[in-house]
Amino acid sequence: MKRIVLLRHGQSAWNLENRFTGWTDVDLTPKGEEEAAAAAEHLKKEGFVFDIAYTSFLKRAVKTLNIVLDNLNQDWLPVEKTWRLNEKHYGILQGLNKAETAKKYGDEKVLLWRRSFDTAPDPLPEDDPRNPKFDIRYKNVPDDQLPRTESLKDTIERILPYWHKTIFPKLKEADNILVVAHGNSLRGVIKYLKNISDDGIVELNLPTGAPYVFEFDADFKLTKDYFLGDPEEIKKLMAEVAAQAKK
Amino acid sequence: MKRIVLLRHGQSAWNLENRFTGWTDVDLTPKGEEEAAAAAEHLKKEGFVFDIAYTSFLKRAVKTLNIVLDNLNQDWLPVEKTWRLNEKHYGILQGLNKAETAKKYGDEKVLLWRRSFDTAPDPLPEDDPRNPKFDIRYKNVPDDQLPRTESLKDTIERILPYWHKTIFPKLKEADNILVVAHGNSLRGVIKYLKNISDDGIVELNLPTGAPYVFEFDADFKLTKDYFLGDPEEIKKLMAEVAAQAKK
Repeated sequence: MKRIVLLRHGQSAWNLENRFTGWTDVDLTPKGEEEAAAAAEHLKKEGFVFDIAYTSFLKRAVKTLNIVLDNLNQDWLPVEKTWRLNEKHYGILQGLNKAETAKKYGDEKVLLWRRSFDTAPDPLPEDDPRNPKFDIRYKNVPDDQLPRTESLKDTIERILPYWHKTIFPKLKEADNILVVAHGNSLRGVIKYLKNISDDGIVELNLPTGAPYVFEFDADFKLTKDYFLGDPEEIKKLMAEVAAQAKK
Repeated sequence: MKRIVLLRHGQSAWNLENRFTGWTDVDLTPKGEEEAAAAAEHLKKEGFVFDIAYTSFLKRAVKTLNIVLDNLNQDWLPVEKTWRLNEKHYGILQGLNKAETAKKYGDEKVLLWRRSFDTAPDPLPEDDPRNPKFDIRYKNVPDDQLPRTESLKDTIERILPYWHKTIFPKLKEADNILVVAHGNSLRGVIKYLKNISDDGIVELNLPTGAPYVFEFDADFKLTKDYFLGDPEEIKKLMAEVAAQAKK
């Protein structure tokens, strides 16, 4: 049996302040660190030993992964970091409080930006200091691939090439792979693996800190997927994420 | 100008208890975490931005590196971990308190094991649970390369191939490289770079938490090496390490 575990990073400072984060490099809160440690406990209880891990270029995902590996005593695990697993880029909304945004752009537009599969917020101007072209971490990414904004569709389209070329083929030699990333980048992977519709994926609210296990057979066919942890607790967490998104 | 920075991990639980650690995967103490953060402050003050980092398979080095990168806001940096940067393997001494060891094996033998360049402690028996062949992290290392004990000479001989093949050639594309490892594995690199004698390297006591900078010119010739931080403080730290080793 081969397994890939997806994990959404724990609470970040801006989750807490209800601000659009996207590619902003915001830190975990102490609660976020606890969620990472709790995810490690679930994995330990199931006896998971990983062969490799993947994460994004953003601190909240990298630190969640570091905490998980440390709690599993797998600090030594090879880790690959990629900008392709970054959160959805929120364009001009990045840094804004969700209430401020509604006031500035109107409820209707904001609702469209937040709930639509293929409408992106307005892009960052080229000279905006938030433009990723000014950030040295992306210096090796060709500029025509670096987003100034993204719809969920765009996010999924930049993740899947990495999934197909790097993560999934690794299953040939690895039995257990860990991917620590973000709500929207993981939506991309899940949409693909479970063949979920465009409307359906917008409704999927991934809980933080709950490892999501995908099992594959010898032909690399998906046979089973499930969250680790108490099912009632998972349901509650997903409802909380959905409520947060509606605030 | 090209630079490679060597950093010895901060205090670990067994440094504190004065036990032989070697390949045992002991955690940092809170003081060790502070030392890592202090090292990051020195690097930040000098404006260091790294292109890549290397570390060992041992928790105390990986966590020191994670703390440094987090404090530099370079969590996203590519990191390569290798068993070749591990601490010297202390054979049957691993886990023993230094006073116990003297009692068990006699002062003379222990002094020889500790101060000699090319005498290794007795090797771990094949069935000893501390034998690295039982540890999954080394599953990809050919068994005839996995030590059961090491002299300082052996340690240096297994590090240098990685230095020559992987770390040093990376300077062609990278301007700033960070290597976080251990007292004895870093001795190997320093002995080579500064052409220090066998006797001389035994006397070199690398302080923890003080970044050691090596500068190279366009022809990759070493031009300068120096510690970051207050020189008086460095001297004091080196004397402390020397005193610890003599206890």
